[in-house]
Amino acid sequence: MTKILKVEIKENETIDDLILGDLKIIQKRDGFRFSLDAVLLAHFAHLKKGAQIIDLGTGTGIIPLLLSTREVGLEILGVEIQKAIAEMAQRSIALNALKQIQVINEDFRELGREHFNRYDLVISNPPYLPVAQGKISPKEEIAVARHELKCTLEDLIKAASKFMVDKGRLALIHRAERLAEIISYAKSYNLEPKRLRLIYPYLNQTANLVLVEAIKGGKPGLQVQKPLIVYNEDGSYTQEILEYYLSGVTNDPASISGR
Amino acid sequence: MTKILKVEIKENETIDDLILGDLKIIQKRDGFRFSLDAVLLAHFAHLKKGAQIIDLGTGTGIIPLLLSTREVGLEILGVEIQKAIAEMAQRSIALNALKQIQVINEDFRELGREHFNRYDLVISNPPYLPVAQGKISPKEEIAVARHELKCTLEDLIKAASKFMVDKGRLALIHRAERLAEIISYAKSYNLEPKRLRLIYPYLNQTANLVLVEAIKGGKPGLQVQKPLIVYNEDGSYTQEILEYYLSGVTNDPASISGR
Repeated sequence: MTKILKVEIKENETIDDLILGDLKIIQKRDGFRFSLDAVLLAHFAHLKKGAQIIDLGTGTGIIPLLLSTREVGLEILGVEIQKAIAEMAQRSIALNALKQIQVINEDFRELGREHFNRYDLVISNPPYLPVAQGKISPKEEIAVARHELKCTLEDLIKAASKFMVDKGRLALIHRAERLAEIISYAKSYNLEPKRLRLIYPYLNQTANLVLVEAIKGGKPGLQVQKPLIVYNEDGSYTQEILEYYLSGVTNDPASISGR
Repeated sequence: MTKILKVEIKENETIDDLILGDLKIIQKRDGFRFSLDAVLLAHFAHLKKGAQIIDLGTGTGIIPLLLSTREVGLEILGVEIQKAIAEMAQRSIALNALKQIQVINEDFRELGREHFNRYDLVISNPPYLPVAQGKISPKEEIAVARHELKCTLEDLIKAASKFMVDKGRLALIHRAERLAEIISYAKSYNLEPKRLRLIYPYLNQTANLVLVEAIKGGKPGLQVQKPLIVYNEDGSYTQEILEYYLSGVTNDPASISGR
């Protein structure tokens, strides 16, 4: 017997297939769509069976959806400050009937003590730009996702440290140009950077993004993993990127320079 | 008229050619020899005409020698704590009749106020290992070059900050695993990391070394330059490494895993 799921899809939304586990995701036509960055982060994060996970600023819910295909028994909480986006993510979760994922519409800086020292993994693809840098989008949803209007990098790292169990992990993707700030804030909130991966659009270009894993109360000693190259010289995607998409998403990879 | 230079060469030493400007360097047969690391650092450092430069832990004097070929009017002071090594470096400088380079046998932590706020560039290829990590060489000269017996990473960064003019630069090569510590100490001594280059032995391996440039009183914002790959898949040197050696050194590149 096929179970019928009734989930409302609005006019400016699309339903897109994620291949793994037949997952689907609701996104907006006009630009509030997940990017390659979220896919790279979901693949980078270290997962263990049954982990408690919190995604700070979950947006479309793409990261919880992708994580749910990678390991069993995960319990994932997505936190999204924008009401309409949180509600869209909730419908995506309902569409996939994934009971292990919950999305709440909250400001993560104000979550209560029941969330403290609780999560094995804090994951986030946060806004990349300080308010003083770059043009702020006139579309509020886009603006909040791109600029630190609702939370700064320090807010994020401080909250992450609070939510993590001892020896819990933070997995983050961010602009490479902010790496020194990330490392410095992490250390000041007792999160030791343990694993790093630089993302270079081309082998002969500066890195634009960085994946960072930090462990609460970890000992110094950083592993800088092999470079992640996005494009071959001829502009086609490298094998690694294609494999992420073949194993996860039917859409063409979104531009990673879009944010 | 050819000028005759009289420089003593000891029994356990070799004289090696550096192609540029017909430079020569004295090294020990038994292991106290410069490595690829020093060559990479000398090429990474940003130089301006007439800069005042100090090399902390100059060893054989390789970094001052290489820098002297890259820009005119530099004044370079090499500081070496080990008497016999400092003396060997002094003979290399004499051999090349380079008046713009001076090597002194001092502990850089104890240099007087005449060195404070003076240098445009502080450069260093310091010992890589904390005392608690790895086997300490029974040969004292090697031990001091490899392990932080005479100065810690924090000593080095603190001293560098003291010696630099405002907006002066620190150029450093170190183990990639210590990057988080480097960034954190730099920030705590008012040195902002501005340029980073990861060195990967092979394209598909973790980085083992990192080149870091920090600016005293600089604003946040880090450029992560294109990956520096040492070997091609077949084990031969990449074009970039060959070019460093073709332009600088006749010897085969030393192993970068030697330290």
